[in-house]
Amino acid sequence: MTTTKTPYQELEGRFERLSKLGQALGVLQWDMACNMPAGGAEARSAQLSALKVMSHEMITDPALADFLDAAEADQTLDPWQQANLKAMRRRRARALAVDADLVRRLSEAGSACEMLWRDAKAKADFKMIVPSLIEVRDLVLQRAEALSAALDLDTYDALLDGYEPEGRAAEIAPVFDDLAAFLPGFTDDVLARQAAAGPLLELPGPFALDAQRKLCRSMMEVVGFDFDHGRLDESHHPFCGGVAEDIRITTRYSEDDFMPGLMGVLHETGHALYDQGLPAEWRYQPVGKARGMVLHESQSLMMEMQASRSAEFIAFAAPRMREAFGGSGPAWEADNIHRHYTWVERGFIRVDADEVTYPAHVILRFRLERAMLADDLAITDLPGAWAEGMEELLGLTPPDDALGCLQDIHWYDGAWGYFPTYTLGAMAAAQLFAAARRANPQIPEGLTVGDFTPLMGWLRENVHQKASSRTTMQLMEEATGAPLDATAFKAHLASRYLA
Amino acid sequence: MTTTKTPYQELEGRFERLSKLGQALGVLQWDMACNMPAGGAEARSAQLSALKVMSHEMITDPALADFLDAAEADQTLDPWQQANLKAMRRRRARALAVDADLVRRLSEAGSACEMLWRDAKAKADFKMIVPSLIEVRDLVLQRAEALSAALDLDTYDALLDGYEPEGRAAEIAPVFDDLAAFLPGFTDDVLARQAAAGPLLELPGPFALDAQRKLCRSMMEVVGFDFDHGRLDESHHPFCGGVAEDIRITTRYSEDDFMPGLMGVLHETGHALYDQGLPAEWRYQPVGKARGMVLHESQSLMMEMQASRSAEFIAFAAPRMREAFGGSGPAWEADNIHRHYTWVERGFIRVDADEVTYPAHVILRFRLERAMLADDLAITDLPGAWAEGMEELLGLTPPDDALGCLQDIHWYDGAWGYFPTYTLGAMAAAQLFAAARRANPQIPEGLTVGDFTPLMGWLRENVHQKASSRTTMQLMEEATGAPLDATAFKAHLASRYLA
Repeated sequence: MTTTKTPYQELEGRFERLSKLGQALGVLQWDMACNMPAGGAEARSAQLSALKVMSHEMITDPALADFLDAAEADQTLDPWQQANLKAMRRRRARALAVDADLVRRLSEAGSACEMLWRDAKAKADFKMIVPSLIEVRDLVLQRAEALSAALDLDTYDALLDGYEPEGRAAEIAPVFDDLAAFLPGFTDDVLARQAAAGPLLELPGPFALDAQRKLCRSMMEVVGFDFDHGRLDESHHPFCGGVAEDIRITTRYSEDDFMPGLMGVLHETGHALYDQGLPAEWRYQPVGKARGMVLHESQSLMMEMQASRSAEFIAFAAPRMREAFGGSGPAWEADNIHRHYTWVERGFIRVDADEVTYPAHVILRFRLERAMLADDLAITDLPGAWAEGMEELLGLTPPDDALGCLQDIHWYDGAWGYFPTYTLGAMAAAQLFAAARRANPQIPEGLTVGDFTPLMGWLRENVHQKASSRTTMQLMEEATGAPLDATAFKAHLASRYLA
Repeated sequence: MTTTKTPYQELEGRFERLSKLGQALGVLQWDMACNMPAGGAEARSAQLSALKVMSHEMITDPALADFLDAAEADQTLDPWQQANLKAMRRRRARALAVDADLVRRLSEAGSACEMLWRDAKAKADFKMIVPSLIEVRDLVLQRAEALSAALDLDTYDALLDGYEPEGRAAEIAPVFDDLAAFLPGFTDDVLARQAAAGPLLELPGPFALDAQRKLCRSMMEVVGFDFDHGRLDESHHPFCGGVAEDIRITTRYSEDDFMPGLMGVLHETGHALYDQGLPAEWRYQPVGKARGMVLHESQSLMMEMQASRSAEFIAFAAPRMREAFGGSGPAWEADNIHRHYTWVERGFIRVDADEVTYPAHVILRFRLERAMLADDLAITDLPGAWAEGMEELLGLTPPDDALGCLQDIHWYDGAWGYFPTYTLGAMAAAQLFAAARRANPQIPEGLTVGDFTPLMGWLRENVHQKASSRTTMQLMEEATGAPLDATAFKAHLASRYLA
């Protein structure tokens, strides 16, 4: 008995294989970050490259064209299958739009520029990287234009769309302008109030690494992470990788301060819980993947910013921190620890920024990368434009470019169009958390006793289980009753920092 | 300017990709053994299976047939290219010979039988596994017959050839018969002499695991392992995986006894040094791989049995062991430690056997698996035949099947035809070591001061760098001046245990 596959089933089979190949790539990348000896870099790079080429060949296989056309004419598909087909079409269109030679040149230029960038950043020497960055920017622009033509998108949106499907700069810009107008005065108010409350009590280290590891693992378990289906390891850059059944998150610890490491772990745990909550029956299909970086970041910031930095959760966590490090006295009281975890300070570095000043860093980068792609800003003028923007948004002028336009890897390794997703994610997190609390008042109560199940239940149903079956905007409307905007984010900031 | 590839170059390109896919599979398997949480097993199995199917499709791609024919007509190929082509043809012929359905059925039956075997072994209950083992044996035989027809080999040789190309049972049987006749009397002599020398002085534990890890790493460095291109980890079953630039070996430790763990590490290091010494310019081609399991095992036993258990090396290592565990007194003297590491005892378990009694275990399995495949021995009669063989070869009768025919995984998971390579490897190790010492008398001297460079230099030139450019027999003749036989192995045993 032979059964003939429908065109849609044929596509599902091919994308399942593609997905497994992608998962194998993920294991290779995790291993590279966590285990690989330095001497293995070249061999690993060759393995990764071979698997990526195979993946590219599979998605651009001419045979897919007929299957896609035929499946799109199939009237029997349900909404998830239709969404799946749309996601397949989108992935293929993006892969076909850019020719392999440009992909290769951009990858090589990005790698070379990234290597140089490490040096330039260490020396705070922007000039030395200008030619290399110009090359990357030009290739990124070529790629954006190719995608733009194929997908009928604005140049910048063609890049953004790769990280956040249907993300549009024209919709983001007014929201960011509004935040940019709101935040400086708001921050002044927060700082005045913070100063009036007196100085922080310091928690002096060192903090033994093993005690930090143990605390982080136990807090991950509190939040709902299942170590039978995942791991916590250490790497230079924290990340979340793996598959739902075997999620790998990483962090880094400092003996001087346990606080950022713990919050970093809870941030990555938020990413992990999203991936673990995606619908298992769609695990190998495009529609079953996370929708995009805005929702992904919303889930990490949900855990980190909304839940774990709340007064409710810190009340639960503070005694456990004291126990982990044998701390005692007023500095170790929940109130002081909560002040540490919600301390606001204007600074130069994005990744060290608190949630009040973070959007300014993102808005600056969003504006500058759009200008550089539109030829409104020359690469050589970037440090000046950076200083001006910092002055406007944060009232600071970086003393050198290491604390300025050299601080982030994104532009140097070719990830243009990514930055706005951080702040859109923060907005989405606030809006989702507000909706969740309205729907279930036990959520904040649960946090005070380390019970995340009410929150997780709401997220599973309203976010995770939806995967990519809806657009981000549709999902936000269904989950919160309103389109994604900054209202809830502002209300969250006001409530946490000025109430 | 476009260049057209020759058929041979086209094949090299395809096998390079196949090799990288195989390396990716290796990373996934290493991770599965060393890191994967239990809940990730199903997802990992799906990833492995997808990559294996892709690999199978690449090697059986009909397009390869014409390239192989055309390349074989190419008169310009040098001997390495010709050997490469031959190895490609062999890999493809083996892949094509067995249809995908049989491969799948055997893989599933082997997995199911292996699961059951764990239980049967724990309960020492052979009966419960009989139907499952019969199914595996029948499928293995089907596979052997399919390979036999396609490759024009005897049934058993068709399986053996998968582990040791050109290995032939008809040549092995008389060598094993000769050893089987020689070893019982020889073992009696060794035991008498050993008893006359008095009892061993025990080294009482426990031995801290961290001290064992540190000792093992330092001994690996002494032997020549480069940690910039490899790692040492822990797994349930020790193995050596990875690629030359990034070799991953694993071991297991026991707090009660550090000796087996250390020797296990040196054994795997021997495997690793072989892989690291293969010619880099051929790293992605079949001709650039290890020749087969006989030479691979010869390299691990070279390091473990020939070099590391020698009186010369123990003289160097004993003070380091004392230092690692804070030992003192006569038990920690080199002479007593050397007696431990060369202690001979007839026992039931192959993996615990010393080098004098080990061949008896292998010869028993070789005879029995040939008989089972030839229908000369029914699976239900295996325990009886096992007991008879043990009595003949070692003068022992196992009290139960856990100490008998249930002890090894090989038959249950489908690896029939593998066993003889262990003892052929031991013979090859002895023969190569004897030739190396003749060629460079500084080799034993080097061992007394922990200098393995003279030995490694000879192995690199005469074994590792040859890769698969020659058959095992040709390589042995070139390296030692004689075909592989048991002469040197017997001489080694006589010199170490009776001199």
